Amino acid sequence: MASAVTPPRGMRDFLPAEKAHRERVLQRIRSVFRAHGFDEIETPVMEDASRLHAGLGGDNEKLAYAVMKRGLTLDALAEASSPLDLADLGLRFDLTVPLARFYATHRGQLPSVFRAIQIAPVWRAERPQKGRYRQFMQCDIDIIGEPGIIAEAELMTATVAALDALGVPGCSIRVNDRRLLTAWLAAFDVPESLRSAALISMDKLDKIGLDGVVAELQSIGVERAGEMFEGVHPPLDGDDSWRMLDHTVFADQAAAADLRTLRAAAGDVPLVFDPFLVRGMGYYTGPIFEVAHPEFGYSLGGGGRYDGMIGRFLGTEVPACGFSLGFERLIDLVELGDEVGEGSALLFERDADLPTLMALKAALTSAGDRVRLLARPKNMKAALEQLHGEGFTRFAVITAETAADVETLDWRRLDSA
Amino acid sequence: MASAVTPPRGMRDFLPAEKAHRERVLQRIRSVFRAHGFDEIETPVMEDASRLHAGLGGDNEKLAYAVMKRGLTLDALAEASSPLDLADLGLRFDLTVPLARFYATHRGQLPSVFRAIQIAPVWRAERPQKGRYRQFMQCDIDIIGEPGIIAEAELMTATVAALDALGVPGCSIRVNDRRLLTAWLAAFDVPESLRSAALISMDKLDKIGLDGVVAELQSIGVERAGEMFEGVHPPLDGDDSWRMLDHTVFADQAAAADLRTLRAAAGDVPLVFDPFLVRGMGYYTGPIFEVAHPEFGYSLGGGGRYDGMIGRFLGTEVPACGFSLGFERLIDLVELGDEVGEGSALLFERDADLPTLMALKAALTSAGDRVRLLARPKNMKAALEQLHGEGFTRFAVITAETAADVETLDWRRLDSA
Repeated sequence: MASAVTPPRGMRDFLPAEKAHRERVLQRIRSVFRAHGFDEIETPVMEDASRLHAGLGGDNEKLAYAVMKRGLTLDALAEASSPLDLADLGLRFDLTVPLARFYATHRGQLPSVFRAIQIAPVWRAERPQKGRYRQFMQCDIDIIGEPGIIAEAELMTATVAALDALGVPGCSIRVNDRRLLTAWLAAFDVPESLRSAALISMDKLDKIGLDGVVAELQSIGVERAGEMFEGVHPPLDGDDSWRMLDHTVFADQAAAADLRTLRAAAGDVPLVFDPFLVRGMGYYTGPIFEVAHPEFGYSLGGGGRYDGMIGRFLGTEVPACGFSLGFERLIDLVELGDEVGEGSALLFERDADLPTLMALKAALTSAGDRVRLLARPKNMKAALEQLHGEGFTRFAVITAETAADVETLDWRRLDSA
Repeated sequence: MASAVTPPRGMRDFLPAEKAHRERVLQRIRSVFRAHGFDEIETPVMEDASRLHAGLGGDNEKLAYAVMKRGLTLDALAEASSPLDLADLGLRFDLTVPLARFYATHRGQLPSVFRAIQIAPVWRAERPQKGRYRQFMQCDIDIIGEPGIIAEAELMTATVAALDALGVPGCSIRVNDRRLLTAWLAAFDVPESLRSAALISMDKLDKIGLDGVVAELQSIGVERAGEMFEGVHPPLDGDDSWRMLDHTVFADQAAAADLRTLRAAAGDVPLVFDPFLVRGMGYYTGPIFEVAHPEFGYSLGGGGRYDGMIGRFLGTEVPACGFSLGFERLIDLVELGDEVGEGSALLFERDADLPTLMALKAALTSAGDRVRLLARPKNMKAALEQLHGEGFTRFAVITAETAADVETLDWRRLDSA
């Protein structure tokens, strides 16, 4: 029977060791972001369905879990013209739609340049697969109200500092700019109506190669697809990549200047110009970037500028850019040293005096110890090993004769058990 | 337009100052519970609808938010015989049902006596009112697998230690035992079929007074309601309350002995025997308790033993007891001293060199400072006051001529601004 009792499909429980690890990592990320001048906020896990489906979430809107109206009647069911008529709320599928809603609600109480931290779960009804879950944590930082490239510089340095603090050094950041992509497509006469589709194809370079991309572009009607990549493919890497920015196809001078400024501002952080970086979401308007780790084929996070979006619920345009750390990918890479301090186990005989036992525990916790009570088991060895594994460092046996005085206990080290 | 953009009804956003306060309080609670030997776990916010509606949640089951199946067709809507046919998941309304499910899933990996911390939000579709929200935090500790009163003693001391750490001292704990209540009802010939209803009436003493309780008991068919309270009402308070336990109506000797042991084990924590303490949930089987604060008419948390419940999904009986801290009531009582350290604001002219500015920020954060960049505003006074209010302690102005050397900056204290 027990084997059939599981969390909902695609969702996970966290046992003590894993939960403690996740909390330690989150705490460290939070503390770096705070040091970099960001402030944490929180929104409810649900938003009104009309806002979740306002077009800000792209394809993710289709993955939203819908929450049913309360008090529905069978008549209401029969009269619904779509299942979504029965839902008035939904679980957030990202932290950006809630941020736009939050900003519209509270703008008057926020600083003119607002740096937000959001560390919270989101839900997507995707097909579960290895490393992809239906509930997962997102760690987002966003800067709202700053039109200049200084915002991107702050996001990047905060992100790299967080990765450093987690012992994941050696990352580089790949950057591009939606304005450069637009200029590139315009230079080859790709009409505006095809540009979104063209970007989706170009984003597949890693998966289907140059020939695949060209074929796909031609199939959607990009006539000069064959010429587009001359002198740009294969892309240059590292510092050399910046030479590509001189290519005539990247004709947006403001965007090119912003990326060069960003490179200079990034200090020690290695920035790579990647003309094939697209990023999926349609809402980006300026610089876009992704963190690449030397050992992994996937990115550890990404973001960009999306000036049109945060102000949508407010009805005005508000400059904004954001970065999202890929927490669920990161968590498996990070090994933090144990932060466990002294831990004392009291192994008590069943006839031990309960007030004495509780007084001993109180004295130890007051002194800063972590204390675990355990009825003295038959198999001492296994119990001591388990306690040691949980970070306890010493134990004492409490019998009916033991006095309520920590000093007189016969402590034994657990590492030598 | 902005005024219409709100979180969903009955749910709240938390702005930076409040979010920071809540996180500090939660962190302190978590750290006390950990010191007392408990381990934090996490479960998904959703559970399968069949488990949420398995009868473990009492009236709260009716308040659960139902999550719609994905890919529903209009035919499915028309064929449903109840709205709940359309939901396969629901948001948890408490942390106890998920704990029972978690324990059934992972029992083999958990210690034989498992002390769980759960600090997480729950959702109830109640009518919103002052102090009652549709999403709110619960802070639960539970001990699973320990049949003895030592479990209750550990819950109580951990709870009181948490309240002490939060600067909410002076609480007392009111205790009773469901077995005593059962014996009391039996002593006055209340048939088993009436006992649940009788307990619900007795729980209303504070609201409707003794006459009200007696009238209500008589109306449901408790014939000897008038005699029941002789020698017990008005109840005695403080240490005197324990004299009531000698009354012949409290005829369960094991329960009385457990409460006396608990009193002795609680050390400095003042325990009051309250024969009218019932607690709402039907699942309690032994000792029950509530935290009373001297200045408030409401309890700051409560719990009890519920041996029948945790094992329900497992199919075996497992001893268990738990305590839930009333976090949303507590948060307004707690004032923690500011934990904000040094904070440096860099007020930059728009023509300042960005790489220099970012180098200065990096040097300060590396040294442990919290750093905020701010374009030098027209109204310096207002900006400095806001920075001071956010915990920043000094500022420097960065111009196009400033060098990338923290030592040479012209720092000014913010408190004297």
